[in-house]
Amino acid sequence: MLMMADFFVKTSAPVSELPQNDRPKMFLFGTPSYTNMGDQAVSLAIRKYFELEFPQYQFIEIMDYDTHAGIKAVKEIINARDIVGYTGGGNLGSLYTDIEEGRREVFKTFTHNLTISFPQSIHFEKNDYGEKELELSQAAYASNPNLVLFARDAQSFRRMQKAFDNHVRFTPDMVLFLEPRILKLKRQGALFVLRHDGEKVLTESFITTLKDVLAKEGPVERTDTVLENPAKITPVTRERLFEEILEKIASQEVIVSDRFHAMVFSVLTQTPCLLFGNSYGKGKHAYYDWLENVKWIQYTDETDLGRITTQIDDLKKAPVHDFELRANFKDLDRLLQAHTAKFN
Amino acid sequence: MLMMADFFVKTSAPVSELPQNDRPKMFLFGTPSYTNMGDQAVSLAIRKYFELEFPQYQFIEIMDYDTHAGIKAVKEIINARDIVGYTGGGNLGSLYTDIEEGRREVFKTFTHNLTISFPQSIHFEKNDYGEKELELSQAAYASNPNLVLFARDAQSFRRMQKAFDNHVRFTPDMVLFLEPRILKLKRQGALFVLRHDGEKVLTESFITTLKDVLAKEGPVERTDTVLENPAKITPVTRERLFEEILEKIASQEVIVSDRFHAMVFSVLTQTPCLLFGNSYGKGKHAYYDWLENVKWIQYTDETDLGRITTQIDDLKKAPVHDFELRANFKDLDRLLQAHTAKFN
Repeated sequence: MLMMADFFVKTSAPVSELPQNDRPKMFLFGTPSYTNMGDQAVSLAIRKYFELEFPQYQFIEIMDYDTHAGIKAVKEIINARDIVGYTGGGNLGSLYTDIEEGRREVFKTFTHNLTISFPQSIHFEKNDYGEKELELSQAAYASNPNLVLFARDAQSFRRMQKAFDNHVRFTPDMVLFLEPRILKLKRQGALFVLRHDGEKVLTESFITTLKDVLAKEGPVERTDTVLENPAKITPVTRERLFEEILEKIASQEVIVSDRFHAMVFSVLTQTPCLLFGNSYGKGKHAYYDWLENVKWIQYTDETDLGRITTQIDDLKKAPVHDFELRANFKDLDRLLQAHTAKFN
Repeated sequence: MLMMADFFVKTSAPVSELPQNDRPKMFLFGTPSYTNMGDQAVSLAIRKYFELEFPQYQFIEIMDYDTHAGIKAVKEIINARDIVGYTGGGNLGSLYTDIEEGRREVFKTFTHNLTISFPQSIHFEKNDYGEKELELSQAAYASNPNLVLFARDAQSFRRMQKAFDNHVRFTPDMVLFLEPRILKLKRQGALFVLRHDGEKVLTESFITTLKDVLAKEGPVERTDTVLENPAKITPVTRERLFEEILEKIASQEVIVSDRFHAMVFSVLTQTPCLLFGNSYGKGKHAYYDWLENVKWIQYTDETDLGRITTQIDDLKKAPVHDFELRANFKDLDRLLQAHTAKFN
């Protein structure tokens, strides 16, 4: 049974058939059911973008576990004016093969439709496995002349141009399209938001030492942007969970993280955040490309505890201010405007 | 009298009239007569790019001091299929107003022709003067719907999209289009390549201290990519001077610099190079965007002498290897291919 978010939201019940009507459609594949709140926020932001900027499109999400059934169902009703998308995030490459396989299937199926790979970071490992995965993706992407890949950082832009002959465009992560949330909650303590996956590079001993230092100044807690419960998230439940995590972030004096979206949530809520690296620099590059001027955010490769505590103290004192990234989504706007104009 | 490099090179004499023939033309404005070898190398690289990739175009350079006369002369012979360009570099903005004025004049004159602003860094100062300059540039650029701005780093891409409504594309600096030069010269000592302009942020006391440290290991010399003589450079003399500076760089054990193009020349010649910042991060951003994986190059914001000497020692031991940025000029290729196809 397909879960189509658009209908689900409006009817409060899952439906098993795609809508057939006169509206042009945006089919977003890969909507995450898993509990990574970064990826959840990306899919939410893509929906918000369309609702605000291209409301004429009926926005239909196909959940990650429904990719195969969704492809079959969409093939039956799709028109030339309809758009196919695959959700954004930091999972294009060889580290999350199940997701990459779904992306390939979608791209090589809808070769006659404008196909948008929403802003991603890319990382194919430099070993036999990574190279084989890259070849599979190259073959799939090359079969779609209407595919446009969006990179969310300059490193990914460079890598995508090298790996693929498709058009590559450069915008921020979709979550940075969302409006800032000035929640004015009481702030207390430090929250460590840390990954537990193969991208982790911080050692546990370093984390423990840094926690001990910060514990002298106030309460210290540890969490992750990947939730332990609920077990699954749907387009119905994700917005509330997204608001909850923003509130959690916004009630801290400082965030210490190696999670790209912990940084982004801190940007949105004006929460001081010190970001450390992951295995291939996706947070680092996005920081330098888009967020270097946001005074309450800092990326660091530092390992010296004295320097790190100075950085954290400085962040806590940093002034808040407006920032403006809307103009940097222009290439996405223009792609969709040009497509829409063709069918009017 | 106009100096047109193409004719000058071929005839060994300046000519006072632009050529009229059946070939489509590429008019490159802003070719530097001043002795900044970085800017000289940029104009040389643009010429090499056209000679290699689009040889059907007659490539005509108009020197910086000839902008007004050149505009007048070009207006009389230009056709729809001809292309107008303004040279690349790190001078778009309010720091070099004479250059920016020429750029505005060119952009607002040839509004019916494909107009290419070759890869630049952008910096308008955040003060009354900078904001007035920005408004003048915005008005001029906005009058040309066929203008495409190329940014050579992600910070500039972000800033250009915010400042201008023109299309903005993202490629490396044009000098990185040139082939590496493996000169195999005997290497000795350290060369400090340091700016003397308003973009300088390194202090003289810091430089002296670092020179003293490196002087213990071998000869230390100081220079700049801006030559003291000759007083002027022409398209005839620049290639030899370019080869000379590459040889100078390639005969050092290490380059210490705050010059973007000292880094680029070090990339091309496999010379270890530690790059420090300028006033607005143009070298830093280009490093992270394009050169982070080049093992003999390192950008640093470090001020601790011990850490800096460790970085230099590591660079001297770094392995050389191939690197590949050709794919990252694709957006320039495609723009020119699309334009060329329209007139075939």
